[in-house]
Amino acid sequence: MDVRRNVEEAMRTHCEFWGFEEVETPTFEHLELFTLKSGEEIVDEIYAFKDKSERELALRPEITASVMRFFGEELRARSKPLKLYYFSNCFRYEQPQKGRYREFWQFGTETIGGDSVKTSAETIALACSILSSLGLEFDVHIGHLGVVRGVLESEGVVGGDQDRLMSLIDKGDVDEISGFLDGLSVSSECKELVFELIGLVGDGREVVSQASGVLESYGFDEVGGAGLVELESTLGYLESYGNFDYTVDLGIARGLEYYTGTVFEIYIPGLGAQNQVCGGGEYSIPQLMGSDQFSTGFAFGFDRVVEAIEHQGIDLDLKPGLMAYVVPVSDEFRDEAVGVLGRMRDSFPADIDMTGRGIGDQLSYVDSVGARFAVIIGEREVENGTLSLKDMESGEQVELDVDEAIDKIRREYEVLLN
Amino acid sequence: MDVRRNVEEAMRTHCEFWGFEEVETPTFEHLELFTLKSGEEIVDEIYAFKDKSERELALRPEITASVMRFFGEELRARSKPLKLYYFSNCFRYEQPQKGRYREFWQFGTETIGGDSVKTSAETIALACSILSSLGLEFDVHIGHLGVVRGVLESEGVVGGDQDRLMSLIDKGDVDEISGFLDGLSVSSECKELVFELIGLVGDGREVVSQASGVLESYGFDEVGGAGLVELESTLGYLESYGNFDYTVDLGIARGLEYYTGTVFEIYIPGLGAQNQVCGGGEYSIPQLMGSDQFSTGFAFGFDRVVEAIEHQGIDLDLKPGLMAYVVPVSDEFRDEAVGVLGRMRDSFPADIDMTGRGIGDQLSYVDSVGARFAVIIGEREVENGTLSLKDMESGEQVELDVDEAIDKIRREYEVLLN
Repeated sequence: MDVRRNVEEAMRTHCEFWGFEEVETPTFEHLELFTLKSGEEIVDEIYAFKDKSERELALRPEITASVMRFFGEELRARSKPLKLYYFSNCFRYEQPQKGRYREFWQFGTETIGGDSVKTSAETIALACSILSSLGLEFDVHIGHLGVVRGVLESEGVVGGDQDRLMSLIDKGDVDEISGFLDGLSVSSECKELVFELIGLVGDGREVVSQASGVLESYGFDEVGGAGLVELESTLGYLESYGNFDYTVDLGIARGLEYYTGTVFEIYIPGLGAQNQVCGGGEYSIPQLMGSDQFSTGFAFGFDRVVEAIEHQGIDLDLKPGLMAYVVPVSDEFRDEAVGVLGRMRDSFPADIDMTGRGIGDQLSYVDSVGARFAVIIGEREVENGTLSLKDMESGEQVELDVDEAIDKIRREYEVLLN
Repeated sequence: MDVRRNVEEAMRTHCEFWGFEEVETPTFEHLELFTLKSGEEIVDEIYAFKDKSERELALRPEITASVMRFFGEELRARSKPLKLYYFSNCFRYEQPQKGRYREFWQFGTETIGGDSVKTSAETIALACSILSSLGLEFDVHIGHLGVVRGVLESEGVVGGDQDRLMSLIDKGDVDEISGFLDGLSVSSECKELVFELIGLVGDGREVVSQASGVLESYGFDEVGGAGLVELESTLGYLESYGNFDYTVDLGIARGLEYYTGTVFEIYIPGLGAQNQVCGGGEYSIPQLMGSDQFSTGFAFGFDRVVEAIEHQGIDLDLKPGLMAYVVPVSDEFRDEAVGVLGRMRDSFPADIDMTGRGIGDQLSYVDSVGARFAVIIGEREVENGTLSLKDMESGEQVELDVDEAIDKIRREYEVLLN
């Protein structure tokens, strides 16, 4: 659990230092909340059930819908931008496999309101800053849905057809995309252009100029260009957050209809099929939010981030374990032993025998649990006001004043902490 | 959320300093796990549902059964005592009311193995130490189920009858207890004795002597005495953990059949009908644990502890909020502003405008969100390598070197933290 807690702590501190506040929403909600956001298809992947009043409930498959509902019901009057973060478990009904679990944790943010360029840049910068602070190597891909959506719009591909196509682009199956475009009888230029655009992937802002050129060459610059301009401004802002590499990728589609503007995904090299640890972007869900506010957010697949840390062999400065194990030589020194133990437990992890084992067995136990010091209390120690400290690494034993002994262990604990 | 996180943090640190390690179990389990532990009656209070393979599942109503299952399946080979803690949400299907929610959090421990006197004393001491460290006033009541169970056993009241009676004693309805005892046709001495015992409540170890006298006067000292001896040793151990008041209360019955030995409950004065914030004791669930190991544990009703803190007006040293809000005088100083912001966010909470507001509106916003300093960056500051710091409390403004300015805010943040 230690690695998980350290990752959680790093994420929380990051968000709080960036001005976000935590929200917590219920584990189950009305099923409708999730179908409203993600469509009826999601029901197959949801743990849905009826309560004793026959209401249809569901274990949350993700958190954004709940945060948007909460915003619509409780937070609409707050000043904008409203910067929220959450750390919560989610549920998905499917065959568990590596990197995909039936119960999994998401850590994410939602920034409601604000300028879309600035909030998108900050959202991407925050996600990257969190992963960098954990020491992870990762690839961030950034795109803008307005480009392809603008092109489709101008050819009359709108509403459900457009969303369906974006979802096929998200899955990345070329034959399916091609078939679907043919069925819609778009012009052959439009079809070619879509494939050129979603194939545009490369480092830095040059890709934006390439895309711009492609749009122009097909005569679609007026309809797709606004998205590119916004993307370019966002990348400019993003660069002011520090030097990090990113890939512009116009093939990112995010698969859900309420995404509209800048979107991004983060991958961990070498994690296999489940290598995406983060996804996010700008979206609007007026049915839930009670207004057409935009929100920009991301969600980390928390369990995958933890796997990535293990995969990349990163040592997350684990907290020191048991620093002291107090060993009273016999039961008559129990009061003194427990008194010393209590003082130690104010400052560092310490323990005492709970079984009634003999002193030899206790010392073997101290060794087996890897405690740093055995603290022996017998007649001499009680008379002298001392403790005998046995260093379990070096095997050396010294007798020290009680205060001095506790101080020595505390100092060592503080060194191990940092 | 801040108070909740501070309480969680205090509980976690306490448990870790006392040598406990965290476990996390799934949110839903097979329904059978909970009926096995708590009886079929619990089904009425459970969110139970069938998955698509018609398996009966349930949202956990408590955590102990899950920890015991996990122990039985995964942890049996570990050295004992095994000291575990958890912080998890639970679900109860009932009308929500003050202090009783459909989704609620429990923080608890389980110590598996060890001597029952020592582990019971440490478990009670830990629960009390956590509440004391939060600054709460509370009453701890300690009893031992072996006394009344021993008396009943000797009169042939065993198995389901005995458990049913303990559950009535737990509810505390005198007429029901009396009717049930009459139905079992126990001797009138036994009935009188049971009522005398469960009425014995008072400070300190004297109550144990009184109970001993009562048992003797009815001639039941051989059957009920062992429990009293164990209780007295436990209280002796408990006292070595420090001076705190406790009430001995032989009327505590905990209501569930697997509790056998020392038990305890903690109440918060003035919290009304839902004033119990903690319950625990020693128990054994061989069907789940795969052995007849004893375990001693407690669970805090986490939400009630938080309510108690609010009720008693305790100020939990909340974390400082936003320390700095960076205000670039115009967009051309954005790179410098974001650069300074990034350095600040390494050390304390800081933010920047995301809306494109004018400088006057930004300063009003800084005021409204209660940020400690406005950090103004304009042409002069960029030329001089300085920042203008406006103290939002005093209204004073000073121009400082960038490093000096960041240091000043960091120092103030550290003061507020402690």
